[in-house]
Amino acid sequence: MNHMIKESKKLAVIGTGVIGNGWIARFLAKGHDVVAFDPAPGAEERTREMLKKAWPSLEQTGLADGASTERLTFVDTLEEAVVDAYLIQENVPERLELKQNVLASIDQYANPNALIGSSTSGIMPTTLQEGLKHPERVFVAHPFNPVYLLPLVELVAGQAKDAKVMDEARTFYESIEMKPLVIQKEIEGHVADRLMEALWREALHLVNDGIATTEEVDAAIIYGAGLRWAQMGPFLTFHLAGGDQGMRHMLEQFGPALKLPWTKLVAPELTDDLKEKVISGCETHAGETTISELEQKRNEFLVKLLDLVEDYWPESKSLIKN
Amino acid sequence: MNHMIKESKKLAVIGTGVIGNGWIARFLAKGHDVVAFDPAPGAEERTREMLKKAWPSLEQTGLADGASTERLTFVDTLEEAVVDAYLIQENVPERLELKQNVLASIDQYANPNALIGSSTSGIMPTTLQEGLKHPERVFVAHPFNPVYLLPLVELVAGQAKDAKVMDEARTFYESIEMKPLVIQKEIEGHVADRLMEALWREALHLVNDGIATTEEVDAAIIYGAGLRWAQMGPFLTFHLAGGDQGMRHMLEQFGPALKLPWTKLVAPELTDDLKEKVISGCETHAGETTISELEQKRNEFLVKLLDLVEDYWPESKSLIKN
Repeated sequence: MNHMIKESKKLAVIGTGVIGNGWIARFLAKGHDVVAFDPAPGAEERTREMLKKAWPSLEQTGLADGASTERLTFVDTLEEAVVDAYLIQENVPERLELKQNVLASIDQYANPNALIGSSTSGIMPTTLQEGLKHPERVFVAHPFNPVYLLPLVELVAGQAKDAKVMDEARTFYESIEMKPLVIQKEIEGHVADRLMEALWREALHLVNDGIATTEEVDAAIIYGAGLRWAQMGPFLTFHLAGGDQGMRHMLEQFGPALKLPWTKLVAPELTDDLKEKVISGCETHAGETTISELEQKRNEFLVKLLDLVEDYWPESKSLIKN
Repeated sequence: MNHMIKESKKLAVIGTGVIGNGWIARFLAKGHDVVAFDPAPGAEERTREMLKKAWPSLEQTGLADGASTERLTFVDTLEEAVVDAYLIQENVPERLELKQNVLASIDQYANPNALIGSSTSGIMPTTLQEGLKHPERVFVAHPFNPVYLLPLVELVAGQAKDAKVMDEARTFYESIEMKPLVIQKEIEGHVADRLMEALWREALHLVNDGIATTEEVDAAIIYGAGLRWAQMGPFLTFHLAGGDQGMRHMLEQFGPALKLPWTKLVAPELTDDLKEKVISGCETHAGETTISELEQKRNEFLVKLLDLVEDYWPESKSLIKN
C-alpha cells in the first residue's frame, strides 16, 4: 500500500448511516479533515462508536501521516458542513425526493468548484442533477460496505457531464486507495448492484420456493464461487473453466444452458455478436497471460485463501456438519 | 486440515474433461486409487499433463499418506473402470441422452453397492435415475472448478432415494475434505448454479446492452462483493449491511428496491412470510454472535484478504488505471 503524504483536504459527509460512516472512516484514515452533518438525534455518538470499531482495521491497512479520528467535526447545519469542502459525499436514505432536496441544498451552499458525489445505489446521476445550478459537479460515487475496507467505487456521470470533474473525482478516489470503476452509460443500479441484485433476487426465490434456507444459500456461495470471485469475476472465472480454449469452449458447452430454467432470469440471445464480445473481452483481459499461467495464479491464490478462511468460517460449520 | 490416514478406496472417474480431471486430482491427493475411462483420443495424456500442474497446489494443501499420481490407471472400457469401484463419478458432457446412456452402462457393470455420483450442473437426479436397475445408488454430486481446491459439492437425491446411500456419499465427500451441501429439493441447476447463472445472465445482458465490458463486469465483482462473498454469502453480507438491526433493517430499506429495474430478474413478492424466513434465517445463522462481533471478524478477514489479493490482481490493474 501507498502511504505517501497527500494534500490534506476538507471533506463533507452528509448523512451518517452505515455508508456515510464508512466514508468518514476511510477519509479520516487517509489523512483528511471531515465535517459531518446528520439531523438524526445521537448521530455523532453512533459515528464515534463505529470509528472505535473500524480504526484497528484501518491501522492494520496503514494510516496516512497525521490521520486521526480527532479530525472529525459534526456540525448543526448542512450549510456549515459543505461551505468550504473540497468534496461532498451525500449518503441520505435512498428516496428520490429526499436526495433531490439535499442535493439542491448542497448545490446552493457549496463552493462552485466542489466535487459532489452521491452514494446512491440505484438512482441515475441525470435524475440527481435535475434542477441544480451546477449539475455538472454532481456524479454518482457508489461504494460498497464496509466502505473503509472495500476498494470498489462506481463513478457515473450524468447528462450534464464535465470531463474535468470526472477526472478530478477519479484522481481523488484513487488517492484514498480506492479502485474507481468509471461506468460508461448510466443505468438503474449501475453495474455492480445489478449483478448483486440478480443473485440476491434468485436467492430470495430459492428461499421463497422452499429450495434452500438462507444459510444454505450462503454456503453455496462461500465454499464455491465466492472463493473464485474474490480474485476473478464471472467472466475470467468461466474463461478458466473452459480449458485451453477458454471462453470460446465455455460458450459452446454452456451456451445452450442459457435457454434452460436454471434461474428465474431470462438470458439474452447468444448472438454471434455477443459471443464475440465475450470471447474477445476475456482474451483482451488475459492479454499475454496464458490460460495455464492464469490457472497457476488462481491455484496459488486459492491455496492461501483456503488457509485464511479456515479461521473465519465458523458460522457455517454448524450447517455443513449437521 | 486433517491428514489422517483414511481407508484407501478404488474410485472410478468416467469422462475426463476439466471436471473429471479435477476429481481425479482430488481423489489421488486424498490417497485413493483411481481408474479412469474416457474414449477421446489423447485423454490420458491430457490428464497426466493437468496432474503435473495441479499437484504442487495439492502438496501445499496437504497430501494424504501414500497419495501418488502413480495410483491412476486409464482403462479401455467403461466396464473395467467401474466393475469393482467403491464410488463412480460420472462427468460426461452435459447432454441428457449421453448421460443416461453412460449411467445405464455404469448401472449394468458396477457393484450393486457402489455409489454413483453425477457431476451434472443442471440435470435433476430423478431424470438421471430413469430406467436404471438400481436408481437409488445414483445421485447428483456437483462440484466446482477447480474441483481439487474448491470444497463445495452439492449432493442431491432423486425420487428413488436411499437415505443410507446419501449418508454414505456425504461421509465419503467429507472424507476427501469437501463441504457437502445436501439440497433438500431437486430443481434444475440445483442451488449454487442458479445463483451463479443469475449473475452470469445479468452480466451477459450488461455486455450485450453496451453498459460494460467483460473486464469491467469482472472488476465490479472483484473489488466489491467478491471479497465479501469469499467469507459470507449474500444473506449474511446484507445482514451486516443493515447495521445493528441487521437483515430486518436491510429489508425495510432495500425491500422497495426489489420493485425497481435494477436487474432483468423479477423479484418475488416480499411477503411477511418471506421476510420472516429471511430475517430468522440470518438470525439463526449468526446464532450467539452479535452483528458487532461478525463485523470484527469480517474486518480481520478483509484486511488479510486485501493483503493477499494485492499479489494476485495484476490482470485488472490495466483496467483500473486506464
